[in-house]
Amino acid sequence: MGLLVSGKRVSAGGFPPVMAMVSTSDPDEIKQVILLRMDLPMGKGKLVAQGSHASLDAYLDAVSKMPAIARKWHGQGMPKVALKVESEKELVKMFQAAKDYELPCSLITDAGRTQLEPGSKTAAAIGPAKAEIVDRITGQLKLL
Amino acid sequence: MGLLVSGKRVSAGGFPPVMAMVSTSDPDEIKQVILLRMDLPMGKGKLVAQGSHASLDAYLDAVSKMPAIARKWHGQGMPKVALKVESEKELVKMFQAAKDYELPCSLITDAGRTQLEPGSKTAAAIGPAKAEIVDRITGQLKLL
Repeated sequence: MGLLVSGKRVSAGGFPPVMAMVSTSDPDEIKQVILLRMDLPMGKGKLVAQGSHASLDAYLDAVSKMPAIARKWHGQGMPKVALKVESEKELVKMFQAAKDYELPCSLITDAGRTQLEPGSKTAAAIGPAKAEIVDRITGQLKLL
Repeated sequence: MGLLVSGKRVSAGGFPPVMAMVSTSDPDEIKQVILLRMDLPMGKGKLVAQGSHASLDAYLDAVSKMPAIARKWHGQGMPKVALKVESEKELVKMFQAAKDYELPCSLITDAGRTQLEPGSKTAAAIGPAKAEIVDRITGQLKLL
């Protein structure tokens, strides 16, 4: 825990402090979640491209901020899961919580060349990071 | 061109030699394509996870083999596009052509914990690499 949050008690609006967490996850499990907005008219190809963009950006954030976690995730096969969010507000809330927990993360704004208005926030990724902390933020979201 | 293929004339079964290429692409454009099998029962979340896996793996291959191209792609906003393939045979053919052209690439085999048989080849990514060479391999595929 200390590795990820520098031993501080951190919390974000609506999310419990890390030190108060009770979790059944494997404490060594590292994962990444990819969040995609369901309220935008994105086809499958757009979902894949935006999700891949978020995934890679968050990975690069991890390499920069916590390279040991990035390496460990790589060794575990880089597990990742795609989850649904229903609005820009929910997407930004999750991203902000990840920032508050000091987790590697990314928020993707579409260039708007196809399908969407320029500047639309389409996707985010949180992690690679300890699964139990990621789940504390995104555990209520449904699988895409 | 020489940077990517070491000045050699390389060709792959059914694909023309690189040196014979005629392309209208921007010669400086770097891109990545993500290939996903349409003949497997993959839901949207599975497509995003497998596509993101392929994308990140091929990026790491590029960082290792041609870091200047990886950096250039990053500077261009890491453009990527998702394409359809209709069979494992077509997926492997595209991947093998990318290998023959000495492009960064990845081929993803699913662990089979959900939805699919263990060992199913689900996705591939080619690039980041010069768009005109990537298009020579995958230009006939349809957008996902």
